[in-house]
Amino acid sequence: MTGKAFSPAFRAELAELLRWRRDVRRFRTDPVDETVLARCLDAFRLAPSVGLSEPWRLVRVGSPAAREAALTNFQAANAEALSGYDGDRAERYAGLKLSGMREAPVQLAVFCDDSAPKGAGLGARTMPEMRRYSVAGAVMQLWLMLRAEGLGLGWVSILDPDRLAADLGVDEGWRLVAYLCIGWPETDDCEPELEKAGWEQRAADVPVEWR
Amino acid sequence: MTGKAFSPAFRAELAELLRWRRDVRRFRTDPVDETVLARCLDAFRLAPSVGLSEPWRLVRVGSPAAREAALTNFQAANAEALSGYDGDRAERYAGLKLSGMREAPVQLAVFCDDSAPKGAGLGARTMPEMRRYSVAGAVMQLWLMLRAEGLGLGWVSILDPDRLAADLGVDEGWRLVAYLCIGWPETDDCEPELEKAGWEQRAADVPVEWR
Repeated sequence: MTGKAFSPAFRAELAELLRWRRDVRRFRTDPVDETVLARCLDAFRLAPSVGLSEPWRLVRVGSPAAREAALTNFQAANAEALSGYDGDRAERYAGLKLSGMREAPVQLAVFCDDSAPKGAGLGARTMPEMRRYSVAGAVMQLWLMLRAEGLGLGWVSILDPDRLAADLGVDEGWRLVAYLCIGWPETDDCEPELEKAGWEQRAADVPVEWR
Repeated sequence: MTGKAFSPAFRAELAELLRWRRDVRRFRTDPVDETVLARCLDAFRLAPSVGLSEPWRLVRVGSPAAREAALTNFQAANAEALSGYDGDRAERYAGLKLSGMREAPVQLAVFCDDSAPKGAGLGARTMPEMRRYSVAGAVMQLWLMLRAEGLGLGWVSILDPDRLAADLGVDEGWRLVAYLCIGWPETDDCEPELEKAGWEQRAADVPVEWR
C-alpha cells in the first residue's frame, strides 16, 4: 500500500475550513438531503477511538415527542443557568440565542457507551474518560465535514444529560456527550456569535509551556 | 462579510484525509520543522470551545527529565494493563507497540483547565465535562492538520494522569486530556495498527437509532 500525500493547496483550504467553522445557532428550516447527511456521518466510521472501541451511539431525535422533551430540557437548564448570573452578565446571557432546537431540521443526540465491549478496554484503564474523548473527536470530524458541505452544526450542552437519556429511553450506561443541531445556517460567518455578542473574546494565540 | 464555500473536489480530499488519518506509534526520529508545527498548532486557536472558554493548556515535553518521567509513567501503566489480560489476549497485548514515546521528536501533554475563567461558565453548568470535550475536539483538529502535512500523531492514554500532572509540575486543576507523540511516521497506512495486529476490527458502518 502506498502512502497518501496532500498538497499545499489542500492544506491552505483545510486551514480555511477551520477558520470558517462556526457553532451555528441560527438555522434555516429547509430540509437537509439525507445523502449529504449520510456522507458526513461517515466521519464517525473513520474516526479514531481508544482501542478501536468505537463507543459512539447515535440517536436521531426526529419525533415531535422526542423533540419536545429535548427542547423542554434545554429551556429548564437555560433558565437555571440564567439565574446564576447577575446584572450585566444576566442581561447579556438572556439576549443570547443558545440553541437552534426549534429550527434545525436534523437533531442528533450523541452518546458514549462507557462499557463499550469493543477493544477489550485497551487504553482506557487509567483514563476511562478516553472513550468520551473519542466520541468528542468524532463529533469534531463530523462538524468539519458538514461545514465543507455548507451545513452548520450547533453543539448544545445546556441540557440535563441524565434526563435526556431517560426521555429518549437509551440503554443504561450511555452518557450524553453532545446534542447536535444540524441544518443550513442563516449566514456564514468568520466570527463566533459569542464574540459578536460581547460575551467573550478569542485569544490571539495559544501559549505553549516547556518542561 | 461574504460566506465561504468549499468545492466538491475539496470535500473529496477531506474525506481522503479522514480515511488516511492514523494513530501513529512508529516514528522516524528526524526533527519536525518548528514552522510546520506552529502552523498545525494554530488548530487550537481556531478550535471551538464551550462558551469560548478555550480551556486547553499545552505543555511541550522536551527535557530529558520530563521525557523520562512520562516514559516511566507509561511503562508502569502498560505493565499494569498487561496484567489485566489473560492467555491469548495477554500475549497479543504484549506484542503491541502502544507508544512512540522513545522515538517521537515532538511530545505534547494537553491539559484541560477545569476552572478556566474565560466564558464565565457558559454551557458548562449541567455538563462541566464540556471543557474537556472542547480540548479533545481541538486535538482532533490538530491531528488532521498534522496528517495533511504528512506528519503522524499518536494519542497515548496508557498513563497515570495525576502522576504526569505532578511530574510536569502543572497548575492545580489541570487535567490531562491527551499525551501526544508527533513526528514523521515510518509508513503511511490506511488500516489501523490494532486492526492489523488482530486486536479489534472497525465496524462497517455507524448505526443510527431513531426516536
